[in-house]
Amino acid sequence: MTDRAAKYFTTKATERDRAVFEAGLALGMVVHQFTGIPLRSNEDAEMLERLIERSILSQPYRTRAKVAIKRRFDHKPEDPYDYSTLKTSDLDVLVEVRYGRFVVRARLRRVEELDFNLAYIEDIEEV
Amino acid sequence: MTDRAAKYFTTKATERDRAVFEAGLALGMVVHQFTGIPLRSNEDAEMLERLIERSILSQPYRTRAKVAIKRRFDHKPEDPYDYSTLKTSDLDVLVEVRYGRFVVRARLRRVEELDFNLAYIEDIEEV
Amino acid sequence: MTDRAAKYFTTKATERDRAVFEAGLALGMVVHQFTGIPLRSNEDAEMLERLIERSILSQPYRTRAKVAIKRRFDHKPEDPYDYSTLKTSDLDVLVEVRYGRFVVRARLRRVEELDFNLAYIEDIEEV
Amino acid sequence: MTDRAAKYFTTKATERDRAVFEAGLALGMVVHQFTGIPLRSNEDAEMLERLIERSILSQPYRTRAKVAIKRRFDHKPEDPYDYSTLKTSDLDVLVEVRYGRFVVRARLRRVEELDFNLAYIEDIEEV
Repeated sequence: MTDRAAKYFTTKATERDRAVFEAGLALGMVVHQFTGIPLRSNEDAEMLERLIERSILSQPYRTRAKVAIKRRFDHKPEDPYDYSTLKTSDLDVLVEVRYGRFVVRARLRRVEELDFNLAYIEDIEEV
Repeated sequence: MTDRAAKYFTTKATERDRAVFEAGLALGMVVHQFTGIPLRSNEDAEMLERLIERSILSQPYRTRAKVAIKRRFDHKPEDPYDYSTLKTSDLDVLVEVRYGRFVVRARLRRVEELDFNLAYIEDIEEV
Repeated sequence: MTDRAAKYFTTKATERDRAVFEAGLALGMVVHQFTGIPLRSNEDAEMLERLIERSILSQPYRTRAKVAIKRRFDHKPEDPYDYSTLKTSDLDVLVEVRYGRFVVRARLRRVEELDFNLAYIEDIEEV
Repeated sequence: MTDRAAKYFTTKATERDRAVFEAGLALGMVVHQFTGIPLRSNEDAEMLERLIERSILSQPYRTRAKVAIKRRFDHKPEDPYDYSTLKTSDLDVLVEVRYGRFVVRARLRRVEELDFNLAYIEDIEEV
C-alpha cells in the first residue's frame, strides 16, 4: 500500500503519529457531523449507530468502529413535539485506526466526573 | 389533536401557513444537518436515505418523506482516499406536511438550469 | 425583480406561501448549521450572533435578521476543559422575509413551558 | 498545569501522542462544523475566518489558529439566488497544539494533485 498523501506530512511524522492523528480526525468528525439529528425512537437511534460506523469506516485507515447511542428516544407517537435531537453526550464511539505497524484505539464518551464529553486514546499498539 | 404550541403563533397564521412553514423547516434541516457526511458506497447512501426519512418524520406534522441520493458513491476499497462527502446537490428530498385541513408537498433538488439546489413547493391541497 | 425560480413552484403557491416557506427554511438552516460550535467567551458568542445574521441575510428574500445568544459563555481561561458548544436552546433568532407584498416575521427560541425550542410565526403582514 | 482528563488516556499515550490527537480533533471539528454555512460576500468570509479561529482556540491545548477562506464570495446583491455555502475546499486551516513539551502544527487544505481536502501534520517539535 502506497500512501499518496504521505509526502505532504512532515518527515518527522511517524507511523504512530499518523495513526493517532487519524483517530483524532475521526472523532472530531463524528461529534460535529452527527450531533443535532432529530430522532423519535430507539429504532431510529440504532439505524444511526450503524450509519455513523459506516461513515467512520469510509475514511482512510479506520479499521473498526463501534457506536452506541443512549436509549432515551422512545417518544410518544401521539405528541407531535415529543422527539429529540442527538446530543454529543448520547454518544459512545470507539474507533480503531491502523497505519503501518501501529494500531490506535480512541474513544468518545460522556465522562460524568469531568462533566465533559471526552475524546481520549484508549490504547496504542505496535503490531 | 390539540396543538400545545399553537398559542405562540400569531392568530393571523392559518392552517395553510402552518403547513407551509413546517415544510420549509423540514428542508432547511435536511440540507444543513446531513450535508458533509462521509460515504464510501452506494449502500451507505441507501442507508442514509432511510435515516434522513426517519429524521424528517420525527418532527411535527410531517406525514411523508422520500429521499433519493445520487448513486455516485462506488469508491475503490483499495484506495484509502477514495471516498466522498454528501453534497446538497446529491439530494432529492420530498417532504409532505399535514396541518389541519392542509397538505403541503415540498421538494429539494438540484436544478441545473438555475445552477442552484432549490427548495420549492410542489403542491398545496385542502383535504 | 423577476424570480428565476418561480416557475418551479406550484401555481397554487401564493406570495404569502412563498414568504412563509422561506422563513421556515431560514430557521431550519440556523438550528442545524450552527448548533455545536465550540465557544469560550461571551465575546465569541457576540461575534457568532453577527455571523448568523449575515448568513441568514445571504439567502433569498430575507430582509432582516436578529440573533441573540445566551450570555453563558464566560469560561475560565486557566481550565482547558472549560468551554462549551452552542445549543439550540441558547438561540433567540428573529428572521423577516419579504416576498412580493407579504412580510413574514418568524422566531426561534426556547419555550420553557413546552420544554421545546420552538420555531413559530410571529407576524404576517400584507404591505 | 494538571490535566483532569489525563487519567482517562492509556498510560502508553505520550505528550507527543496527546498533541497529535488534539490536532486531529481540531481539524475534524472545523470541517464538519463549518462546512455548509451560507455566505454572500468576502466580508462575510473574513468574519467567518475569525470565528473559526476563536472556535478552534476555545478547545483544549490549542495555542494558535489561522484560517483563510477562498475569496470567491462576491455575489451580486441584486440576484436573490446568487450566494453560496462554504465548502471544505474553500478552507486553509492551520492549527497549533501544545501539550507538555510537544508542539504540533497541522493543516487542512485542498490538495489539487490528490483531488482531496487533506488534513496533515506540518511539523512536530519538542520545545
